[in-house]
Amino acid sequence: MPPAKKSMPPSATNSPVKRMRIAPEPGQAKQTDGAGRESAGAATTRQDKRRQETRLKLMRAALHLMSAKGMDGVAIQDITNAADVGFGSFYNYFPSKEAIFQTLKDELIEHYAAALDKLGEQVTDPAEKIAASARYTIRHGRADSVWGKFVLATNFNRDSLRTGLGRYLLRDVMTGIEAERFVCHDLASLVVAVGSTILGGLMAEVTMSEQADDPFGSPDDLPEKVSATLLTTLGLPWSEAWAIASRPLPVVDLPVNPLGARSA
Amino acid sequence: MPPAKKSMPPSATNSPVKRMRIAPEPGQAKQTDGAGRESAGAATTRQDKRRQETRLKLMRAALHLMSAKGMDGVAIQDITNAADVGFGSFYNYFPSKEAIFQTLKDELIEHYAAALDKLGEQVTDPAEKIAASARYTIRHGRADSVWGKFVLATNFNRDSLRTGLGRYLLRDVMTGIEAERFVCHDLASLVVAVGSTILGGLMAEVTMSEQADDPFGSPDDLPEKVSATLLTTLGLPWSEAWAIASRPLPVVDLPVNPLGARSA
Repeated sequence: MPPAKKSMPPSATNSPVKRMRIAPEPGQAKQTDGAGRESAGAATTRQDKRRQETRLKLMRAALHLMSAKGMDGVAIQDITNAADVGFGSFYNYFPSKEAIFQTLKDELIEHYAAALDKLGEQVTDPAEKIAASARYTIRHGRADSVWGKFVLATNFNRDSLRTGLGRYLLRDVMTGIEAERFVCHDLASLVVAVGSTILGGLMAEVTMSEQADDPFGSPDDLPEKVSATLLTTLGLPWSEAWAIASRPLPVVDLPVNPLGARSA
Repeated sequence: MPPAKKSMPPSATNSPVKRMRIAPEPGQAKQTDGAGRESAGAATTRQDKRRQETRLKLMRAALHLMSAKGMDGVAIQDITNAADVGFGSFYNYFPSKEAIFQTLKDELIEHYAAALDKLGEQVTDPAEKIAASARYTIRHGRADSVWGKFVLATNFNRDSLRTGLGRYLLRDVMTGIEAERFVCHDLASLVVAVGSTILGGLMAEVTMSEQADDPFGSPDDLPEKVSATLLTTLGLPWSEAWAIASRPLPVVDLPVNPLGARSA
């Protein structure tokens, strides 16, 4: 088997190049808008900067807590304690726990899924598209385990077929079935199997680093092997599945986790 | 497709017959031992009964909390609050949070896995054995969603290959590979795919009941369809996979959740 990792673009390796800030912070946008009005602008900028920093602290705290416990397992008080921000201040930034959770989802998952779609535009074969999405997702979790935990905590449920990464997967699986590229005997169980396998690969990468004595290790090309295996579930023979899953990945500006850089 | 559900033994339906108490409570054992000494025994029995009730309350509270948040997301204080028991009393029953978690795992998962093995002894085909285990597990989660959530919260990680249900799966997959019943191109990704698919089927059943407006529904025979799909991942053609996965399940005394009966 070829060492697939060597053919990866930088954004898919363990040290992704941060190419793209997926969502400008409110403060940043205002800073640009107010650049022409210097004297009033300076004060506004300082205040905006503080606001932006507090908002980021809250977002980072919520991300870490919700990655570990899911949204339901976290109280606003937990978030403000972890962010070292007064409880009441929370409401200056977010109207509710659901709102901060939704903001995290929008910034970390919806933008990611939209970027995967750009990647998908570069390949025409539905099998290669699903394999590329799966490889990027699993490799992304290897590079950014907080992101990976958040995806696992929030996407391993049926709701993700409507509001999470699962709905992109469902669409891509159906496209491949309609094109007679995939063999489908039962759609529900096929989507369960393919979606769960991607999350299982992500889980393997995310939890591996926490278990130094893991007897199973994790080969560098696990993302490719998991992707090839799921292509066999979709009806492709292994030789073709492996050939597709070990092709060089298309180069695409995938979003980085804007909350990851300074998070513990 | 035959309506597989009709051929299920009672223990695999939505209302399992409670045949077996998987672990006697300490109080019960003493009650029997002390039956000969009537006067001293009565007081001991009352005290033991109270102890047993408190222990059960703590176990139930821990089960519910850890099902939702995992072990790491729950503090001893959370457990004693939910059980309405004084914080200090906890240590009369368990030396640590890890100890109550391990007790829950032993009673709800280890005993379950051991019972699955008894089921496995009744079938000789490795494919049928894995399919039967997967079907029982997914159906068990449908009948007892608290049990299902606990399995999902504690087994969707790499550690389950050493200490959870995953290690039974790993062994059964390897048995089938050695017998040349399964086609394996890469063991790690195959185990990831098969294990994740079982958990994905369990997740589908566990969360379905919480989402009345779920557009995907859940067919009665989803456990059979998921099991057939995972057999195709193991290399079987669909027609054979479906035939195996829709056979009548062997009758076996599977453990029931001793904490489930009176839990909310």
